[in-house]
Amino acid sequence: MIHITLPDGSVRSFEANITPMEVAKSISEGFARNVISASFNGTTVETVTPLTSDGSLVLYTWNDKAGKTAFWHSSAHVLAQAIEELYPGSKLTIGPAIDNGFYYDVDFGEHTVSEKDFKSIENKMLEIARGKHDFKMRSATKAEALALYENNPFKTELIENLEDGTITFCNHSTFTDLCRGGHIPNTGIIKAVKILSVAGAYWRGDENKPQLTRVYGISFPKQKELTEYLELLEEAKKRDHRKLGKELELFTFSPRVGQGLPLWLPKGAALRERLENFLKTAQKKAGYEMVVTPHIGQKELYETSGHYAKYGADSFQPIHTPKEGEEFLLKPMNCPHHCEIYNNSQWSYKDLPKRYAEFGTVYRYEQSGELHGLTRVRGFTQDDAHLFCTPDQLDAEFKNVIDLVLYVFGSLGFENFTAQVSVRDPENPDKYIGSVENWEKAEQAIINAAQDKGLNYVIETGEAAFYGPKLDFMVKDALGRQWQLGTIQVDYNLPERFNLTYKGSDNELHRPVMIHRAPFGSMERFIAILLEHTAGNFPLWLMPTQAIILSISEKYEKYAEKVLNLLENDEIRALVDHRNETIGKKIREAEMQKHPYMIIIGEQEEKENKITVRQHGGADLGMISIEEFSEIIKKEISKTLKPF
Amino acid sequence: MIHITLPDGSVRSFEANITPMEVAKSISEGFARNVISASFNGTTVETVTPLTSDGSLVLYTWNDKAGKTAFWHSSAHVLAQAIEELYPGSKLTIGPAIDNGFYYDVDFGEHTVSEKDFKSIENKMLEIARGKHDFKMRSATKAEALALYENNPFKTELIENLEDGTITFCNHSTFTDLCRGGHIPNTGIIKAVKILSVAGAYWRGDENKPQLTRVYGISFPKQKELTEYLELLEEAKKRDHRKLGKELELFTFSPRVGQGLPLWLPKGAALRERLENFLKTAQKKAGYEMVVTPHIGQKELYETSGHYAKYGADSFQPIHTPKEGEEFLLKPMNCPHHCEIYNNSQWSYKDLPKRYAEFGTVYRYEQSGELHGLTRVRGFTQDDAHLFCTPDQLDAEFKNVIDLVLYVFGSLGFENFTAQVSVRDPENPDKYIGSVENWEKAEQAIINAAQDKGLNYVIETGEAAFYGPKLDFMVKDALGRQWQLGTIQVDYNLPERFNLTYKGSDNELHRPVMIHRAPFGSMERFIAILLEHTAGNFPLWLMPTQAIILSISEKYEKYAEKVLNLLENDEIRALVDHRNETIGKKIREAEMQKHPYMIIIGEQEEKENKITVRQHGGADLGMISIEEFSEIIKKEISKTLKPF
Repeated sequence: MIHITLPDGSVRSFEANITPMEVAKSISEGFARNVISASFNGTTVETVTPLTSDGSLVLYTWNDKAGKTAFWHSSAHVLAQAIEELYPGSKLTIGPAIDNGFYYDVDFGEHTVSEKDFKSIENKMLEIARGKHDFKMRSATKAEALALYENNPFKTELIENLEDGTITFCNHSTFTDLCRGGHIPNTGIIKAVKILSVAGAYWRGDENKPQLTRVYGISFPKQKELTEYLELLEEAKKRDHRKLGKELELFTFSPRVGQGLPLWLPKGAALRERLENFLKTAQKKAGYEMVVTPHIGQKELYETSGHYAKYGADSFQPIHTPKEGEEFLLKPMNCPHHCEIYNNSQWSYKDLPKRYAEFGTVYRYEQSGELHGLTRVRGFTQDDAHLFCTPDQLDAEFKNVIDLVLYVFGSLGFENFTAQVSVRDPENPDKYIGSVENWEKAEQAIINAAQDKGLNYVIETGEAAFYGPKLDFMVKDALGRQWQLGTIQVDYNLPERFNLTYKGSDNELHRPVMIHRAPFGSMERFIAILLEHTAGNFPLWLMPTQAIILSISEKYEKYAEKVLNLLENDEIRALVDHRNETIGKKIREAEMQKHPYMIIIGEQEEKENKITVRQHGGADLGMISIEEFSEIIKKEISKTLKPF
Repeated sequence: MIHITLPDGSVRSFEANITPMEVAKSISEGFARNVISASFNGTTVETVTPLTSDGSLVLYTWNDKAGKTAFWHSSAHVLAQAIEELYPGSKLTIGPAIDNGFYYDVDFGEHTVSEKDFKSIENKMLEIARGKHDFKMRSATKAEALALYENNPFKTELIENLEDGTITFCNHSTFTDLCRGGHIPNTGIIKAVKILSVAGAYWRGDENKPQLTRVYGISFPKQKELTEYLELLEEAKKRDHRKLGKELELFTFSPRVGQGLPLWLPKGAALRERLENFLKTAQKKAGYEMVVTPHIGQKELYETSGHYAKYGADSFQPIHTPKEGEEFLLKPMNCPHHCEIYNNSQWSYKDLPKRYAEFGTVYRYEQSGELHGLTRVRGFTQDDAHLFCTPDQLDAEFKNVIDLVLYVFGSLGFENFTAQVSVRDPENPDKYIGSVENWEKAEQAIINAAQDKGLNYVIETGEAAFYGPKLDFMVKDALGRQWQLGTIQVDYNLPERFNLTYKGSDNELHRPVMIHRAPFGSMERFIAILLEHTAGNFPLWLMPTQAIILSISEKYEKYAEKVLNLLENDEIRALVDHRNETIGKKIREAEMQKHPYMIIIGEQEEKENKITVRQHGGADLGMISIEEFSEIIKKEISKTLKPF
């Protein structure tokens, strides 16, 4: 008999050699029908692997990440079989599951594969899937394995790097592939398949090695799920912030300035400024003070902070001076500079907390292949702040920061979020800097704050940084994708390294606690996410242009200017489209530019001193007075933008 | 007979060997009494040098820079004689005139000289001066010269580097010194003398060579002028922006961050932001658009702009990436980035002018010895903008920029300024890029604009940069010191180098003209000058805190908060001094912090719902209502800050 521990902590006894699927059936036949993968003692196993010892078993369905991985890994086998059958002589290389689907890298030999071939590959895969072939693992000697792939130099290379005795294959139907395991029970579970794209890829990612064709695909247990996924993909493509950024003339990149270094065009710079002003206003009310620090610092500054030792080699390299032998670094974060500002005065406990905020632009090297629009860049502006407080103030400060983050989310239409509290691994107390007492205080402060603010949070043990516990916000966007936004981080390390002190009521010097926080994270990434979340239809208070004034003909330009002035007096951001174009073209382009309101001006409007208003993608508000329009705007703004 | 041309263009005939002083007397005895120095054909001569050929003669008085130079150069001789007499055995080295006064570097041997000795040096100098000794030049052979200085290794080194036949001495009284000439007629003109300081200095500025003592002094033809100068010096010391910056808690430097890299403290950052917002508002009305660009750019960007070839070797050195072999530079100016933004779209003549503005922080290497507070730094934020227009728009754009600069000066209390228009040297047409036609157009546009705006301007021929003519504003501060503030520069070069184009009404591509401009110059330097100009008493609209609320005791803290809220509702920036200190201490510190208004709160004030108001360094306004106080503030602000 062996004892199997299940995730709910219950322990069940079975005869040895029972399989995960049989355990599932012992729980419930209905549950077992959904089980597609398993792990035993933390290692992926087949659902038909006999279990021979005591251990912990986790059974996965499609709803688990591990379930999807097994599903897509298995689908890659089916793709490979389809390719072998459709393109004889093709040489297979590797084919893993990825975050969304799977791919296989193939040397197609004389064949070429393009979009027009996708349908036939999909059909072949579905035909194989319908055969309900079981996936069966088997061991092989290195000699057998090499013999099997004598005509495939890629698999041969893989096998040569494996140790004899560890080599396994997976068979299904007539197909066999070198494989470490982790499959669904059989191909029949795969009900829907889509080949998404083909791309070039070098063998082992090395541009000096042969070029292969990477075939990307995705598969689902239900046709409906595939349909939904493709719709989501279509919508995500429309909302891609790189596409919207171009259409809305927000930002651009220049190869001469350098990749990953965005240039903010006038409309984008205005958007950034509006976001910055919004946060500045709230921060001012919350007692923050703005500071300004340079974008470089001496190497010594980052040696003091510890950043140089940890990241120096992988960062932008030091800047030398032409004389005097000095060395500077592009600043990768603002905290060392803010510590030096704190250190400019000797503070008393009565002066604390100090809350220094800066829209600080930092530079971090990323390989060019990792760069992506505004979400992965080499230079970005953090909405950074560092709070220096006494340990007793930590509780209140943490709550205040959460209030601010929630205010930011609320004002920008992010309604769906959870929080993650990262605390120490209690089994590794040596990993952490700072006293146990302070850690306990800080962790409790974060948990208290999360509870007090009614956050939907999980505690992740062992996920804290070595210098302090933290709270991260995970936000779901309109397409259901999850983004990490807003971090609040306690730090015991930098106050130590920079020898920060305050004079306590006992007249002795004490160490302040430091909090790092950035509700947006960075202006670049936040704007990218906001663009994809809203498809560019920002909350009205944030729109660079709230209304565009279009005159039917040049005759009404003067009245258009008058309307513009009146709107500006009411603090409505408006523009006149002065171009000598037809009203139809002007309306179409205004719609494309996502201006929330179009104001159309002609003879009737001028005569009655009114304006005709159309909402973006929506209602025709008819002819109204400017006062009425102002009221509409103010009312709409007040729905999202409330005072902090 | 020889023909002497005078600065007014008149030509006079004299017998050969006439001296400059005799020419002066031939003009007028009264004028000659003021002449103290001369130059002939561009070379400095003595007033007693016989003129032997035709040529141009300029006669200088104390009011000319060259006159002052001769005066102070001659005073250095008198200082040297005084030192020889007071400190026998001292070895003289060199002693030039400088911008304000003169110095002499001396090896005092066994003697030491400090502040307590200054009086006796001054007295000895005045005693010599009263002797009315003529300065007389004479030639000497190298052998004679070396013999004279056989005990002085410094002068020996100087003489050894001179060619025989070019060596001259100057005698006055019993004193003789190796000297190239350029003296006032006699020592009697020196009526007032002040030794200012002593400092260490290495021979030839080389730290491996012997250390000398540098004695700084200044002298004047009238005692009154010395008194005024010393008063100015005292006042300048009080207004030193480094001192005020510390007292007002505006900025600091950290050795760990690096010299020449200011850290802006909360009050300084708020001041900067207010200045930036002020300019942003005006710029918005003037049709500028804000952009944001990174602080680095690929080396290629600056190769394209030409900056790398010109300044690369003396700049912060390139930043290498850890992989991929890329090279970036800290941006020394914003123009290349703005050219790339312009290049993001194909513009039509109808879209122009484009006016891109950015508070762009740039980095330029300066040797540590050159750094000075905020006026000479290694990182600074320019209030930069680049205007791209058609040649026909240049005239109007230039005028608009002048309007903006004048608005800035007016709002900040700089009332005393002149303009300098720098144009081509017509004798060197090859020195300049761009067509003659465009240059003529641009120069005429600048001169027209200067005239049209009623500027007090001078035209400096040959002072234009190779890429275009410019207009600089020279501002006099409250102490009469002159600063260059506000540059407007036409550029034909970068549009060429970046291949900037617009589509003209002829449907062909044309080159736009570019204007660089920065009314402040940089935030750092401007704030330094503003601090020294106003002694920290900025115009009220700019003060970070306009009023500070001081309660007589803790009992009135609640009323103080109420007053604060009411003031904030009226958009008055106020603070409460919450500290548990005496009202006397609070008032003294508020005065020191230069808060324009102090609001004192006690029993009476709370009862009557009023406030007692004291003006900084001035009037007691008595007990008034908050509404009355608001009106006072608004009225005062409107005196300096008018809408653009």
